[in-house]
Amino acid sequence: MRKKVVVIGGGTGSFVVLKGLKKYPIDLTAVVSMSDSGGSNKRIRDEFGQLPTSDIRSCLVALSDEEGEIGLLRKLFMYRFEKGQGISGMTFGNLFIAALSDILGSQKDAISQTGKILRINGKVIPVTFTNTHLFAKYENGLVANEEHFIDEPKHDGTLKIKKLYLEPEGEANADAVRAISEADYILIGPGDLFTSILPNILVKGIAEAIKNSSAKKIYTMNLMTKYGQTYNFSAQDHVSALEQYLGGSKISHVLINSSPFPAEILKLYEALHEFPVKDDLPGDGDLRVIRHNLISTEKTEKSSSDIVKRSLIRHNPEKLAEQIMKIIGS
Amino acid sequence: MRKKVVVIGGGTGSFVVLKGLKKYPIDLTAVVSMSDSGGSNKRIRDEFGQLPTSDIRSCLVALSDEEGEIGLLRKLFMYRFEKGQGISGMTFGNLFIAALSDILGSQKDAISQTGKILRINGKVIPVTFTNTHLFAKYENGLVANEEHFIDEPKHDGTLKIKKLYLEPEGEANADAVRAISEADYILIGPGDLFTSILPNILVKGIAEAIKNSSAKKIYTMNLMTKYGQTYNFSAQDHVSALEQYLGGSKISHVLINSSPFPAEILKLYEALHEFPVKDDLPGDGDLRVIRHNLISTEKTEKSSSDIVKRSLIRHNPEKLAEQIMKIIGS
Repeated sequence: MRKKVVVIGGGTGSFVVLKGLKKYPIDLTAVVSMSDSGGSNKRIRDEFGQLPTSDIRSCLVALSDEEGEIGLLRKLFMYRFEKGQGISGMTFGNLFIAALSDILGSQKDAISQTGKILRINGKVIPVTFTNTHLFAKYENGLVANEEHFIDEPKHDGTLKIKKLYLEPEGEANADAVRAISEADYILIGPGDLFTSILPNILVKGIAEAIKNSSAKKIYTMNLMTKYGQTYNFSAQDHVSALEQYLGGSKISHVLINSSPFPAEILKLYEALHEFPVKDDLPGDGDLRVIRHNLISTEKTEKSSSDIVKRSLIRHNPEKLAEQIMKIIGS
Repeated sequence: MRKKVVVIGGGTGSFVVLKGLKKYPIDLTAVVSMSDSGGSNKRIRDEFGQLPTSDIRSCLVALSDEEGEIGLLRKLFMYRFEKGQGISGMTFGNLFIAALSDILGSQKDAISQTGKILRINGKVIPVTFTNTHLFAKYENGLVANEEHFIDEPKHDGTLKIKKLYLEPEGEANADAVRAISEADYILIGPGDLFTSILPNILVKGIAEAIKNSSAKKIYTMNLMTKYGQTYNFSAQDHVSALEQYLGGSKISHVLINSSPFPAEILKLYEALHEFPVKDDLPGDGDLRVIRHNLISTEKTEKSSSDIVKRSLIRHNPEKLAEQIMKIIGS
């Protein structure tokens, strides 16, 4: 029987994992955060009265058929309009899902039908259908009340987030809970810890489902720290923060890159106060740490054109999937 | 060998013919007018710098697979956004083709690839790729300089159009000329004579290609006159005007409805100064006239939501196709 693998995350990070894993004979489900609030998503929320779909779209694209006509439709899904008053800046995929939601009268059905149209190999499941917003309270008492204010902080980005929470908390999508419960492996990350990973785990019922699941929990460590949320975080800091929000679940494996980055690219990141995540994980113990070259410094396919500031250093989908499959077996 | 059938027209009328004919084992090509200038088309022209695609879109939808996932994509193509600042009023299909044109760097390729994605049974060919505008000079000297000013006249709609012309004249798409040359049958109409049919024939090279083609020319008579362009036109007036612009080609068959319309619907048309086209065609002679019940007064599928004022009286796709196939044989 095929191994059941659930990937928990947001857009960019999940894109890489899903793109790599879709070629393997496993039963793949992406559980996707729904608290995006920037750009195209803001308009989908405010003007269409729907839930944000950029992360959903990225995961659909990651899992979709890359060949022929569907491959072209896939490219359209990643397309961002640059012309047209009021249209410029919108991503095609978001408009596609918005229109289909209106036709079908349900965003849930629209997402599942879009998956069929794109012939995805797997399932893409929103973590919640509650219209929630992400809040971060920093160590100095400051509160950011939207995902994109955390993602692109206007304040001092070295501030630590003391508490991350959703308002309203949000009810877990039953399909997400089921997938997590039945999973053999739960993959967490890569992805921005506070804006892509934890917004899933904060949804009421998700941390509990993960805790109750007998699945092994594999965490793919981010390559770089993120100014405004994981400034100066070591690998151990990432794992500790994650386990704190998981409330009882233990990470069983960490995948961490061991290959150095080109100095000239690091300089670009330095200018943004972002640095490679320092590997201070224990060499032995309960936590299995897999150190390997996982990076791609070449130009890789983007999950969408939605994010202006693009990572130059990224996980390589194939290298990452290969290491994951070594754990999972086939 | 399959009979080669070319349908010349615009959006709404061609939609009906193509939808009916796609079920038959014939080689079907739609040659489509490209001088639309209203609503969504205006924005595609002005803001995207592309040619108008509403008529193209209608023909693609008419020929597309109506089942399963592609059937859903087909519904999306007919969808018109009602929400979103600057998006409301745009048709999804037009945005789809605009985005794909940008990705592929060619509107021609985008149209042909869209046909593949929608799994159309036939071909949809723009009559020209020249950016042209339609002009009408009326009997009183007034000139309307855009298609939608003719279609929805602000002036006295009883005025006769003395001269219809394109500026610039436009070069015929070589694919359109080839299809016409190789056709066994050329179907003209139904459709607004001056804004859907003749804008094809006015393109440089098209009337000549029709004249040189050995194809039989079948004209489907409109059901109602159209205020602003065919006010008070009898069936013979339609044929005469058409043949005048064809410049030497003779219509071989006319398909004309012989069934009466519900009085209450006629009243709605009367309020718009529109009346059933009077059948004054000769009973015998060179011109073969096929009189039959061709109408559908039930709610039928719309080609798009692009046109606000919708015909209540329409040709029935199946009835019309059946009569056409009686001429063509199988």
